[in-house]
Amino acid sequence: MLAQQMISSHPDVRGHTNDALIASIEALLDCAQVCTSCADACLAEPSVTELRQCIRLNLDCADVCFATSRIATRRAGGNVEVIAPMLQACLEACDRCADECAIHAPHMVHCRICADACRRCAALCRDALSSLGRVH
Amino acid sequence: MLAQQMISSHPDVRGHTNDALIASIEALLDCAQVCTSCADACLAEPSVTELRQCIRLNLDCADVCFATSRIATRRAGGNVEVIAPMLQACLEACDRCADECAIHAPHMVHCRICADACRRCAALCRDALSSLGRVH
Amino acid sequence: MLAQQMISSHPDVRGHTNDALIASIEALLDCAQVCTSCADACLAEPSVTELRQCIRLNLDCADVCFATSRIATRRAGGNVEVIAPMLQACLEACDRCADECAIHAPHMVHCRICADACRRCAALCRDALSSLGRVH
Amino acid sequence: MLAQQMISSHPDVRGHTNDALIASIEALLDCAQVCTSCADACLAEPSVTELRQCIRLNLDCADVCFATSRIATRRAGGNVEVIAPMLQACLEACDRCADECAIHAPHMVHCRICADACRRCAALCRDALSSLGRVH
Repeated sequence: MLAQQMISSHPDVRGHTNDALIASIEALLDCAQVCTSCADACLAEPSVTELRQCIRLNLDCADVCFATSRIATRRAGGNVEVIAPMLQACLEACDRCADECAIHAPHMVHCRICADACRRCAALCRDALSSLGRVH
Repeated sequence: MLAQQMISSHPDVRGHTNDALIASIEALLDCAQVCTSCADACLAEPSVTELRQCIRLNLDCADVCFATSRIATRRAGGNVEVIAPMLQACLEACDRCADECAIHAPHMVHCRICADACRRCAALCRDALSSLGRVH
Repeated sequence: MLAQQMISSHPDVRGHTNDALIASIEALLDCAQVCTSCADACLAEPSVTELRQCIRLNLDCADVCFATSRIATRRAGGNVEVIAPMLQACLEACDRCADECAIHAPHMVHCRICADACRRCAALCRDALSSLGRVH
Repeated sequence: MLAQQMISSHPDVRGHTNDALIASIEALLDCAQVCTSCADACLAEPSVTELRQCIRLNLDCADVCFATSRIATRRAGGNVEVIAPMLQACLEACDRCADECAIHAPHMVHCRICADACRRCAALCRDALSSLGRVH
């Protein structure tokens, strides 16, 4: 992705990028796409009745991650008060979605990939929170 | 809006709606639309150079409010761990956007309406957080 | 909603609002919220297996309507080339979602309300397209 | 990105992926992130007054591309009637944004990267439309 190059060329940022925050942007977009896809795949499974909670958590996680990728992309004069609770919401959404997907992962490839993407995203959101001086 | 009727007809909810959360959904959508509009109007003002921070805060606020309206609409088995930090992010985004718009409100109708919509949304998000047992 | 007041106060618009386009913005947000809610309610129904297509169409319709409400709010110098195909996508998404929800409407209140919201939104998108000189 | 793996594991898709559509999903997310970033960088430039139209087109393009990435990810029983006009809206938004960014590209790195991302995304949306049997 091009987030690093783009943010490096921002007039207020030049030379002082927050690399942890930029890494989180890419993970958030990956995770949002994967969760959107996992919800759709779960919905098509014969066992959809057992996958309702997984679908809800996937949809929540996708919405939170998409929005946070936009907030984290925009500098907003260092809008840490908004970015921090959004990253916190992502953490929670990713952890819960990963836990649920992990249950179904032995039987469903999409849930296995999704659990991995959520875990990775949660870890990078934790790093980004630390980089903003917010300890989880 | 139809949020009240829709959520009342949800199989898991029937008869036990969280009215504070539903009120916040409508305020979030209003606020998101108003902020999107205010950013666009600010961008067209002759004084755009002085309105940069206002535009950034408007765009952040719109993104947070749209996403939270979706999360709050979806029950996700009572996904309080995600809804709560999202409402917290809305509070912060609305308060900061309202403070900035209030500076320009004497000269610009769109900033006056936007400041009011953000204050109202922040108040309803506080009520919704309380209704979830989360004190701000 | 406040779309009319906001757009009236835009420096490039004063006095010359496109009322059909503004009416569509409000219908798009209503429809997006209702579709998000209907997807979540369908997912909780005992007959979820028969409601998969309804859920997919609800989710598509919500995404298209949310995005179009933002594009239609923003003037973008009269960005008709983008607004027009977005309104066209809304029309298609709303018509298909309404047709599917209408099948389930006799048994489910949420599908009945959703079918009505989609029909109303489709009609207002058609009016907005006409107002932009695009005949459907 | 993981779109290829995820969609390959979808129960209704296994073995018959539309690779042109999947390629467009990744380009749409890249383009949406880049446009969000370019709008924010333009807003911080000393020459913001000359960049207003660029910012509006960036914001429109980001909204259209994010939404289309979700619609294209979701199969919706082959919801071609909705995906096709969305891809058409992306084409228009990307072409217009690329044309405007190209004007500023000699002086601004973010506009140069953004023009390239928009051109690439437009080309992949054209391929995806062709793959769906829709000629542009």
